[in-house]
Amino acid sequence: MGVIMNDVRFPVSATLEADMNPAYQARMRIRHGEVTGNTAGMAPGHVQGNLMILPQALAHDFLLFCQRNPQPCPVLAVSEPGDPMIPTLGLDLDIRTDIPRYRVWKDGVMVDEPNDIKSIWRDDLVSFLLGCSFSFEQALIEAGIPMRHIEQGSNVPMYRTNIQTVPAGVFHGPMVVSMRPMKPADAVRAVQVTSRFPRVHGAPVHIGLPHMIGIEDLDRPDFGQAVEVKSDELPVFWACGVTPQSVAMAARPPFCITHSPGSMLITDLLNHRLASF
Amino acid sequence: MGVIMNDVRFPVSATLEADMNPAYQARMRIRHGEVTGNTAGMAPGHVQGNLMILPQALAHDFLLFCQRNPQPCPVLAVSEPGDPMIPTLGLDLDIRTDIPRYRVWKDGVMVDEPNDIKSIWRDDLVSFLLGCSFSFEQALIEAGIPMRHIEQGSNVPMYRTNIQTVPAGVFHGPMVVSMRPMKPADAVRAVQVTSRFPRVHGAPVHIGLPHMIGIEDLDRPDFGQAVEVKSDELPVFWACGVTPQSVAMAARPPFCITHSPGSMLITDLLNHRLASF
Repeated sequence: MGVIMNDVRFPVSATLEADMNPAYQARMRIRHGEVTGNTAGMAPGHVQGNLMILPQALAHDFLLFCQRNPQPCPVLAVSEPGDPMIPTLGLDLDIRTDIPRYRVWKDGVMVDEPNDIKSIWRDDLVSFLLGCSFSFEQALIEAGIPMRHIEQGSNVPMYRTNIQTVPAGVFHGPMVVSMRPMKPADAVRAVQVTSRFPRVHGAPVHIGLPHMIGIEDLDRPDFGQAVEVKSDELPVFWACGVTPQSVAMAARPPFCITHSPGSMLITDLLNHRLASF
Repeated sequence: MGVIMNDVRFPVSATLEADMNPAYQARMRIRHGEVTGNTAGMAPGHVQGNLMILPQALAHDFLLFCQRNPQPCPVLAVSEPGDPMIPTLGLDLDIRTDIPRYRVWKDGVMVDEPNDIKSIWRDDLVSFLLGCSFSFEQALIEAGIPMRHIEQGSNVPMYRTNIQTVPAGVFHGPMVVSMRPMKPADAVRAVQVTSRFPRVHGAPVHIGLPHMIGIEDLDRPDFGQAVEVKSDELPVFWACGVTPQSVAMAARPPFCITHSPGSMLITDLLNHRLASF
């Protein structure tokens, strides 16, 4: 009973049986309420994704926004309107139950943070799954590049920049970036490694001179926690998946649903299979 | 008077003045009726694109189809509804006049092949520009890999396959591929070279065993002209930009406009800038 492989871009690892598929096992624990918080470290090696659910009336503009801004908004999958199942991302994957914690928004204001969204599901909802930096961080760590925020057990520091995204319909706003400090030789290697992963933010958008992209003080991130940048290190900046969420909220859609930060969708896809070469 | 760079993915080469911009010069010759046929070889080094113009009602499904099938349908730009100008692709670029020859389709049947579309332009039309193999062929030639169809002055052979695209709304159908014969060592190099160009079809979708993808006879292509595959060569297959056109026609949209084969949009973008690393 393997996953149907109807997406040639991302051959799903799970031609595995369900009981051999760690991503499926993790989703079942989440679905049954055994996990309600952070998904970091669950089903290692599997792609975790950011969620944005919008009414169909906004879906074209949002997809166009993602197409025009692929570095902050790398689309892994788009559901059919009203269909909660996304078979290209995983076996029996139900977007209404398989994320530990959701956020429900009305007119851009968070109104609820439930553990499932079955009771509020609607026939006009379209789910967007976007790549997340967990995937390229695995590749960086495997390349021997230390990740300071992981070493200190905190969230990566994120900053609003003066880099404007390309607008689409009601969606527009500045790019949010994440920052990882590294030695110059590691920064070169990090460009090489992350260039292989355009589906999960790709190469850095900036290296070394934060004031040029409108960041005044690295010690005061807009999201996440600050990390030290040592005197022999450069700050390296990647487009961040917080961008689409912040852009969508700024547009104040009448209704939308996202994942709660850190509480991601665990897919059957393998991080290594997202490499473009 | 440089082009406004409002697309971070494709920094336009043309911060050039208009009179130093060969792509702009080529478009002006086309706009004024001095060129009405094939654009091959015009403005060397500049990206040429495939055109698909659809009514807004079909735009979301078509964009979603492209998102799900990025190898055959690499989107370079999507216009605003009703707006014929696409500044991210070139200086003063007007999609109604800047292609030498168009095809106008009603219910999937070609009804006209005009030199401009000003008189039939509508406020609900959305233009999609898709990457074309001209771009990666330049990179292959620069890597010293001979292109037989270019040497013999013919169109590349193209074949319908048994590889199904991922459907989206009304759009579905088999992938069309182009074929280039090459020595095995060149095939390895060609995988490396074209992997750098995901925006213009990317890596090959198949090498060497055409019957496995439903091609019975290499000497009888569905489009273009056959080329010899020598005994020390492998046929190498790439996803082809004819796919979106054939898929769109099969859906019989009430109205749409495409470029005429070989008569492409010449953009200010440089082929070399499409490389992902």
